[in-house]
Amino acid sequence: MMLKTHACGQLTKADVGKTVTLNGWVQRRRDLGGVLFVDLRDRTGIVQIVFNPDFSGDAQAIGDRARNEYVLAVRGTVVERDPETFNPNLETGEIEVRVQEIEIMNPAKTPPFPIEDGVEVDENIRLKYRYLDLRRPEMQRTLLLRSKAAKIFRDFLDGEGFIDVETPILTKSTPEGARDYLVPSRVHEGEFYALPQSPQIFKQLLMVGGLERYYQIARCFRDEDLRADRQPEFTQVDIETSFLSQDQLLDMMEQLVARLFRETIGVDIPTPFQRITYADAINKYGSDKPDLRFGLEIEDITDIVSTSDVKVFASVAAGGGVVKALNAKGCATWSRKELDDLQPFAARYGGKGLAWITVKDGEWKGPIVKFLKPEEIAALTERLNVEDGDLLTFSADKKKVVADVLGNLRLKVGRELGLIDESQYKFAWVVDFPLLGWDEEAGRYVAEHHPFTRPKDEDLHLFDTDPGQIRAQAYDLVLNGYEVGGGSMRIFKREVQEKMFAALGFTMEQAQEKFGFLLDAFEYGTPPHGGIAFGFDRLVMLLAGRTNLRETIAFPKTANATDPMTDAPSPVEASQLEQLHIRTVLKPAPATKQPAAAAGETKE
Amino acid sequence: MMLKTHACGQLTKADVGKTVTLNGWVQRRRDLGGVLFVDLRDRTGIVQIVFNPDFSGDAQAIGDRARNEYVLAVRGTVVERDPETFNPNLETGEIEVRVQEIEIMNPAKTPPFPIEDGVEVDENIRLKYRYLDLRRPEMQRTLLLRSKAAKIFRDFLDGEGFIDVETPILTKSTPEGARDYLVPSRVHEGEFYALPQSPQIFKQLLMVGGLERYYQIARCFRDEDLRADRQPEFTQVDIETSFLSQDQLLDMMEQLVARLFRETIGVDIPTPFQRITYADAINKYGSDKPDLRFGLEIEDITDIVSTSDVKVFASVAAGGGVVKALNAKGCATWSRKELDDLQPFAARYGGKGLAWITVKDGEWKGPIVKFLKPEEIAALTERLNVEDGDLLTFSADKKKVVADVLGNLRLKVGRELGLIDESQYKFAWVVDFPLLGWDEEAGRYVAEHHPFTRPKDEDLHLFDTDPGQIRAQAYDLVLNGYEVGGGSMRIFKREVQEKMFAALGFTMEQAQEKFGFLLDAFEYGTPPHGGIAFGFDRLVMLLAGRTNLRETIAFPKTANATDPMTDAPSPVEASQLEQLHIRTVLKPAPATKQPAAAAGETKE
Repeated sequence: MMLKTHACGQLTKADVGKTVTLNGWVQRRRDLGGVLFVDLRDRTGIVQIVFNPDFSGDAQAIGDRARNEYVLAVRGTVVERDPETFNPNLETGEIEVRVQEIEIMNPAKTPPFPIEDGVEVDENIRLKYRYLDLRRPEMQRTLLLRSKAAKIFRDFLDGEGFIDVETPILTKSTPEGARDYLVPSRVHEGEFYALPQSPQIFKQLLMVGGLERYYQIARCFRDEDLRADRQPEFTQVDIETSFLSQDQLLDMMEQLVARLFRETIGVDIPTPFQRITYADAINKYGSDKPDLRFGLEIEDITDIVSTSDVKVFASVAAGGGVVKALNAKGCATWSRKELDDLQPFAARYGGKGLAWITVKDGEWKGPIVKFLKPEEIAALTERLNVEDGDLLTFSADKKKVVADVLGNLRLKVGRELGLIDESQYKFAWVVDFPLLGWDEEAGRYVAEHHPFTRPKDEDLHLFDTDPGQIRAQAYDLVLNGYEVGGGSMRIFKREVQEKMFAALGFTMEQAQEKFGFLLDAFEYGTPPHGGIAFGFDRLVMLLAGRTNLRETIAFPKTANATDPMTDAPSPVEASQLEQLHIRTVLKPAPATKQPAAAAGETKE
Repeated sequence: MMLKTHACGQLTKADVGKTVTLNGWVQRRRDLGGVLFVDLRDRTGIVQIVFNPDFSGDAQAIGDRARNEYVLAVRGTVVERDPETFNPNLETGEIEVRVQEIEIMNPAKTPPFPIEDGVEVDENIRLKYRYLDLRRPEMQRTLLLRSKAAKIFRDFLDGEGFIDVETPILTKSTPEGARDYLVPSRVHEGEFYALPQSPQIFKQLLMVGGLERYYQIARCFRDEDLRADRQPEFTQVDIETSFLSQDQLLDMMEQLVARLFRETIGVDIPTPFQRITYADAINKYGSDKPDLRFGLEIEDITDIVSTSDVKVFASVAAGGGVVKALNAKGCATWSRKELDDLQPFAARYGGKGLAWITVKDGEWKGPIVKFLKPEEIAALTERLNVEDGDLLTFSADKKKVVADVLGNLRLKVGRELGLIDESQYKFAWVVDFPLLGWDEEAGRYVAEHHPFTRPKDEDLHLFDTDPGQIRAQAYDLVLNGYEVGGGSMRIFKREVQEKMFAALGFTMEQAQEKFGFLLDAFEYGTPPHGGIAFGFDRLVMLLAGRTNLRETIAFPKTANATDPMTDAPSPVEASQLEQLHIRTVLKPAPATKQPAAAAGETKE
């Protein structure tokens, strides 16, 4: 077997005159009447190899049999090309290799799609033949980038004294959160392991265990109904520290992220990152993961229109809701159809409607204009900085609905007006998340992050008066409208934990039943601790400039959690189930899929 | 909150005069009549802090309340100790910290065992309170070593152009090998994912995908009955390469291992490692993972005794078995009881008996001596290098039984005679493993490694004549009697794969059914490839000088696959099972555990 001495994509003019052995795949072949040109591809790139009766001898007949994706071994001499045949599209375009010996290491069937970037083929075909899809340079670049990103995370954290600890995959079903994947135990009849939704409990126990700084690039599992950007198994960079303040942790993480972007894609991210409170993010951008690459802020106008003759404004204001406006600068030119489409747009985000006003030639037009008093128009003009050509949009509803409607409208307008500079990476920490959210259905507070999230010290007194107003020492890292990380400081004092459980509506006994050993552990000298988890798949996606998590994963699942290549999941032998003390309970055909319950509280 | 400015274990005389803030746990306290000494411990070590009315003020009363494992924050001044109070057992023994301020960050209940090295406590208690067990310095050292070892693997492989690729945990049940852990699918009624026994198939597909050099520190899962050194989930450093020969790969891996040992424990391992064929290993040491820290080789004496009057020797030789001897140098002094114990010892390894001869004062004694002819004694004397004081032991049986019996006897004698230098690390590659083994029960050949293991080129012709004699391009890395890694070159030619399947007794159609997409993949231009996997848990165990894999894993399972801390596995809600379309099938109490089938073919 002729094994490579050089990589195809790394040959340069400095190698001219050398005898090299190359191994690779046939990218394409051209037979120019007696002279055979083959583009040979390996992981590093492509080089042109040439067969010619003058120097190839018997090798030419063998080379002639090679077709696309054949695996070849060739030995030959590196020569400089004639300048007129330089190929500027190839890194190796100034040289070629004259083949003296060849071996067809393996033939290949014709692949179902071309092995090249930007291939237009149904994604299911790409996933079924993932081993061919992975040959495409853009997939290889992405996997290389992913590997490099992981290395940078590790190098940084290692340098800061973090210990890489592996936590169990076979563990216990968690009482809160999303749906668990379960694993029946063969040894313990009727019992099950669960795959971890995150290493949350273990990382806190490692802090109780005195490790002080832990990290893991950890596989996590959630049996949720998949959306475009969800995978049943995903990877997070999981981090926990003891004896650090929130600010110390966030500062350190900023250095980490800045290094990641500098060393992978050569982008300098200025630090410190902007820090914006959850309340401000919702108020100004209608989102807790605002895209800060453009302004276009939302304004609260409830005070201006609380006694307005626009009935819906006045009644919403009176009912405790809010009225907010977004000035879509320069959008007065929108067509009637575009304006009409605002109603279904609002409805998609739960809004009952979206009022609008166009401002052209100093004239305000739109269904609600006639109900506005002059002083309201004056106040709006000032508050919204109204200028000729503007489109004013209004949403009146509960605070959350208004945020969703105008937050999404802001993104739509930003995109349509080309306000977003795609070359920018705008990071921000969203801080001061609410500790608790009111669950209408359950009639109780639920933890917005998880039940061990530490409240801000200055809000502790609110447990007794207004728990819904308590802000948490919780933070998300957002980038260009995506949440790329999140975490919190944890409760480490028993009396705070008790108040938290009381606010969630359970007694310490019930809490003990739910969180058992973790509460036990906290009794033995728990240090102040907190952490963060980065969504590794998503970070890689953004670094690679892709828009789909599946592009960043070597062997991803489809949106219905299958792998078209291995055909997982699949039926198994009856004997396997018997050993596991389970049997399947199948509904009579035709099987109907029941809608899944909404996902529960999120976890890192 | 007073957060640390310095680490306890890192304070030195250079810090004298500085004001420092420390956070840590109370290791112990001594009240010497008004002066309170506390040993404060963090991850880096212990430092003595002192409370004295002269400088501690109010802090002393608070410090006085601290008990073992309380979490303290203290601020104070580093001072040099009086030379007569130097503590040579502490890295920080020349200094102490005079406390001016203190905060009890958290109290602690009395731990169920002392937080110190070498603690004598039932392992189940340690596992139940693993978060306290992990505070013990020896556990922290081991986890640090593990983290460092992982980093060295990664740094080396990264430097050699390997790409770290994550392969799926939720995948498809494999047709061969050990028992799979299964995960019921909620979305696909009656179907199951399986947890991977290894990333074997995926890493080969990555080679088909052109990645050329892959690695992953991968979690693997086998639902086998646990032995002392098995865990249901374990970690391997998984490696695959294209376009390398076996020798190139092994050379590179030797550099990797040498770097690992140098950079973790400062031991220089000479390269190249010894390479010993499987046949030689079995013949000389009775084991495919020989402990090479001592000699004491086994000798084949079948030729000498094939017509012996020792009936069992002659009949075994005639029946195609072997007769072998181990000269236990200097063991003629063994007591009658020790000699009698050789019979049950042999039986434990499948032997029907073990003949012995003592040689004292030139005289051979033992039950078989009277049957030996003078020429046999002469030949044995020469072959076994018999000297006064020797104990000659003999096993006659099938080759495998003889190897097991004498191989284990060799280890026992080596240990008892103190022949093993525990400070030595003796690596060797065991190569040329048999490709196929005969399965008596199935009446067919089975793959010794796996069905994609490449035969040696020079043995290919044996497929037609004597498949059992084919040697594989398979290799194990052994260290001091442990297998710490193993792998093979893979078949990449269709015609070889067809011969392999034929030898295993199935048609290409049956193979297609069993290995489906992998065989499909191989049709599209598969490069020559091969790889290896290192048992990471075991390597860390040997590096740390431990004898139990559980000591190297943060949260291990017990021998019956449970976690006494989380209580996994455990019963789950009926609604969870319903969503997964399964139900449990419990045997009537009292539940009996059925004996598990023997583990199947091993995989990397």
